[in-house]
Amino acid sequence: MSDPGAGATIPVAPARTSGGKLLGVLDAFTRERPALTLSEIARVVGVPLSTAHRLVAELRRWGGLERDPDGRFRIGLRLFELGALAPRGLALREAALPFMEDLYEVTHQNVQLAVRDDVEVLFVERFAARDAVMVLTQVGGRFALPPTGVGLVLLAHAPLDVQERVLAAPLRRYTPHTITDPRQLRRVLAEVRRSGLAISDRQVTMDAVSVAAPIAGPDGVVAALSVVVRGDSPAAVRALTPGVRAAARGISRVLTQSAGGGWPGASASAGDVAR
Amino acid sequence: MSDPGAGATIPVAPARTSGGKLLGVLDAFTRERPALTLSEIARVVGVPLSTAHRLVAELRRWGGLERDPDGRFRIGLRLFELGALAPRGLALREAALPFMEDLYEVTHQNVQLAVRDDVEVLFVERFAARDAVMVLTQVGGRFALPPTGVGLVLLAHAPLDVQERVLAAPLRRYTPHTITDPRQLRRVLAEVRRSGLAISDRQVTMDAVSVAAPIAGPDGVVAALSVVVRGDSPAAVRALTPGVRAAARGISRVLTQSAGGGWPGASASAGDVAR
Repeated sequence: MSDPGAGATIPVAPARTSGGKLLGVLDAFTRERPALTLSEIARVVGVPLSTAHRLVAELRRWGGLERDPDGRFRIGLRLFELGALAPRGLALREAALPFMEDLYEVTHQNVQLAVRDDVEVLFVERFAARDAVMVLTQVGGRFALPPTGVGLVLLAHAPLDVQERVLAAPLRRYTPHTITDPRQLRRVLAEVRRSGLAISDRQVTMDAVSVAAPIAGPDGVVAALSVVVRGDSPAAVRALTPGVRAAARGISRVLTQSAGGGWPGASASAGDVAR
Repeated sequence: MSDPGAGATIPVAPARTSGGKLLGVLDAFTRERPALTLSEIARVVGVPLSTAHRLVAELRRWGGLERDPDGRFRIGLRLFELGALAPRGLALREAALPFMEDLYEVTHQNVQLAVRDDVEVLFVERFAARDAVMVLTQVGGRFALPPTGVGLVLLAHAPLDVQERVLAAPLRRYTPHTITDPRQLRRVLAEVRRSGLAISDRQVTMDAVSVAAPIAGPDGVVAALSVVVRGDSPAAVRALTPGVRAAARGISRVLTQSAGGGWPGASASAGDVAR
């Protein structure tokens, strides 16, 4: 694992604990940077190569990192396994999957499940139809809240301080249809709350329209479900609305009925209960 | 977060670093124990309550733990997001999903995707048909290698030392059909390698038969795909075989073609490339 790199000359961030540095190593891995050499890790985390070596060894023993045949490191199975326990991750997905399968079989369009993490959308599941419109999202990937259908739903039901932070920040323009006026966005959010439905019309790309509905657990809206279709077909959008609504309600029912009034947790049978 | 518990009287495990304890806190969460109070965490990890408090606070700031409305802690979104980067987790799943969707639509039976972690199967994806035979598996869940179809495939292509360890250990009996004689298992594994197919006939439960095929990346077999059907229908099993083989070959092709000859990594388009 000797890996001559420039990392050794970078000073150690002094205030961090050994645990903080361990988490820092994990944070070095992103969608854009899924495989890193030891010297790249040292550089990104800002620790000497010897420290990076020790941290990586500890994470490898634990299963959080794996080593490629070419010597680069990647996120390991142990983190996939732990991530599967996140109630807003795979556990939510388990409850939603039967309904998403139905929606996908009926529509053969992109079907997406997302949650809010602070001021971003995080996509938990996606069925991408091969012949459907291209979408930019990936499972485990993030996007801004305001321009997406799922994001509008999640923002409309977010705590007020989150809404105000988003409305106070500049709203990035993705297409000529993206809403960038905070007053207009405020009106749209009120309408989403009133109607229980969000439609993002070509706000992310010029060919995609998203129809999204809220998924509620016992403590309020926790996720959003959407179908994304080609933007040139308003009739198709209208036709999808009942299906999206019904699937989101079905998932909400499973979440609300599941044990202890809490999250579905690790109960994989949550999805079966309601069927 | 004050939580009076008995944890404070348990002695600290002395040799562990702060990072090791942090990982220990994460290890406290399992499928059987997905939500824990602070004093439960202190007890399981073997640290004083004050230490558990500090570790949990650090993990919460990072996003690795979340707090329930009822005060218990659960695995957080950050770990789901990181787990999505595991090449043998969601990245493999992204490549496999289109083929699994096809197989599911055609068969409406349980379709499963699994990898090997040491001497266990880890399930990465599962489509569970509502009217299909019950299976015991869950996404992110583990099972023994020898009795399952995917496990037979993965064991047959595992390094020799892994095979020998499994064959040397007692083989647990799940049903009267479970193979518990190591010599018989050795013959079955040779046949799986020869035929490129594994059939587990009622070895886990008395009503399920699994038909599994290997998925190969550029460096050999990395995963297994299976369809699980009711055990009372040998004709159904035979009819499934070409579909399972073809889907596994399709996924293998995507993995082998994907960038750099390595894993699909974060490239969500891997699944689209071959279609």
